[in-house]
Amino acid sequence: MDEKKLAIIATKGSLDWAYPPFILASTAAALGYETQIFFTFYGLVLLKKKLNLQVTSLGNPAMPMPLPVPVIMQTMPGMQAMMSTMMKAKMKKKGVASVEELRDLCLEAEVKMVACEMTVQLFDFNKSDFIDGIEYAGATTFFDFAGDADVSLYI
Amino acid sequence: MDEKKLAIIATKGSLDWAYPPFILASTAAALGYETQIFFTFYGLVLLKKKLNLQVTSLGNPAMPMPLPVPVIMQTMPGMQAMMSTMMKAKMKKKGVASVEELRDLCLEAEVKMVACEMTVQLFDFNKSDFIDGIEYAGATTFFDFAGDADVSLYI
Amino acid sequence: MDEKKLAIIATKGSLDWAYPPFILASTAAALGYETQIFFTFYGLVLLKKKLNLQVTSLGNPAMPMPLPVPVIMQTMPGMQAMMSTMMKAKMKKKGVASVEELRDLCLEAEVKMVACEMTVQLFDFNKSDFIDGIEYAGATTFFDFAGDADVSLYI
Repeated sequence: MDEKKLAIIATKGSLDWAYPPFILASTAAALGYETQIFFTFYGLVLLKKKLNLQVTSLGNPAMPMPLPVPVIMQTMPGMQAMMSTMMKAKMKKKGVASVEELRDLCLEAEVKMVACEMTVQLFDFNKSDFIDGIEYAGATTFFDFAGDADVSLYI
Repeated sequence: MDEKKLAIIATKGSLDWAYPPFILASTAAALGYETQIFFTFYGLVLLKKKLNLQVTSLGNPAMPMPLPVPVIMQTMPGMQAMMSTMMKAKMKKKGVASVEELRDLCLEAEVKMVACEMTVQLFDFNKSDFIDGIEYAGATTFFDFAGDADVSLYI
Repeated sequence: MDEKKLAIIATKGSLDWAYPPFILASTAAALGYETQIFFTFYGLVLLKKKLNLQVTSLGNPAMPMPLPVPVIMQTMPGMQAMMSTMMKAKMKKKGVASVEELRDLCLEAEVKMVACEMTVQLFDFNKSDFIDGIEYAGATTFFDFAGDADVSLYI
């Protein structure tokens, strides 16, 4: 049987939505899939050397909270930073790897990471802020790979 | 012709985003697709026996509102509950099945529902709160099915 | 080799998330893909003749901002309109086509656009508000096409 292929488009850059692309990609790679992630829009920040990812419950009423917090309280200064710190602490306590660790795992497993060139220019990102070992390309590169992939996921 | 297959990852748990996985899965099942939904992250609450799903227009400027409501008003106490009640009433008036009914329809149509074991532990969910007839497994189980699926959707 | 196929479900209707379906569809069409977009839920507004798309950083801590703005400030009157105007100006300055232009490009490239009939009725949309050259159908139509597509993306 030929090697299977997984193509992911990672478009989100919050702390919670940083996990799915790296968890799915590392799992697939461990199963022998040739895997590629195309980072675009807000997802591009997942490639920064120094990650400063944040999470918020605003706009996501399904986010589990230790205590119910009124929506307006969730808009107050410091709340987003607190929620982000709490999520990181919970992940660590539960033995879930950090985003950085999962990203390293993907790189070690030869998951190919492609940064959307157009988004880099649009958001005035500095390429020196990004990790090594990635490529810069356009959406056509995504289809070069996804067109023959067994599974394609837009995250 | 072989039976077609649909693989869904359901990651959202709000009232509005609860519909797409169950509508798409029940439609596909009716068309003869073998269908599997892998519930993970916030999507796991869609498997609770007692659903208490909420919707909010915060962060979603595209949500149709009967009247324009200033963003800051949308953060006020009671607004989220009101929007959730209004959406349920509108769905009912328009003859759209409830999330519970759509979920039952999926189960009757033998849509296989898999709960992400890691998320259950991460969010300290109690398995007795979940409906019967589901499985608990990891992301590798998703790929076992999605690797041979005709359509894979990350919702 | 047979022509490749791309199936997209467009479910979001904000200014930022309006770009991915049209960019991916027009890119794929240029590469020779037969492409179809099924517009449903909030994505249906992307088919309106007069687009009035808005963007907000609420609920999306990954959105790059020229200056850090406290979350509570982002809820203030006028902020969403300001962020939307700024995003449009930035896109224009960077030479990125507008959503209208990208949509026209898709239509010229014969990307088939299908509006979800159920959502039209649910949100009481008026079909005369939508652009010409689109079809109205249900989710089964999506699977008719996606079932044989090489790439399927839920956006």
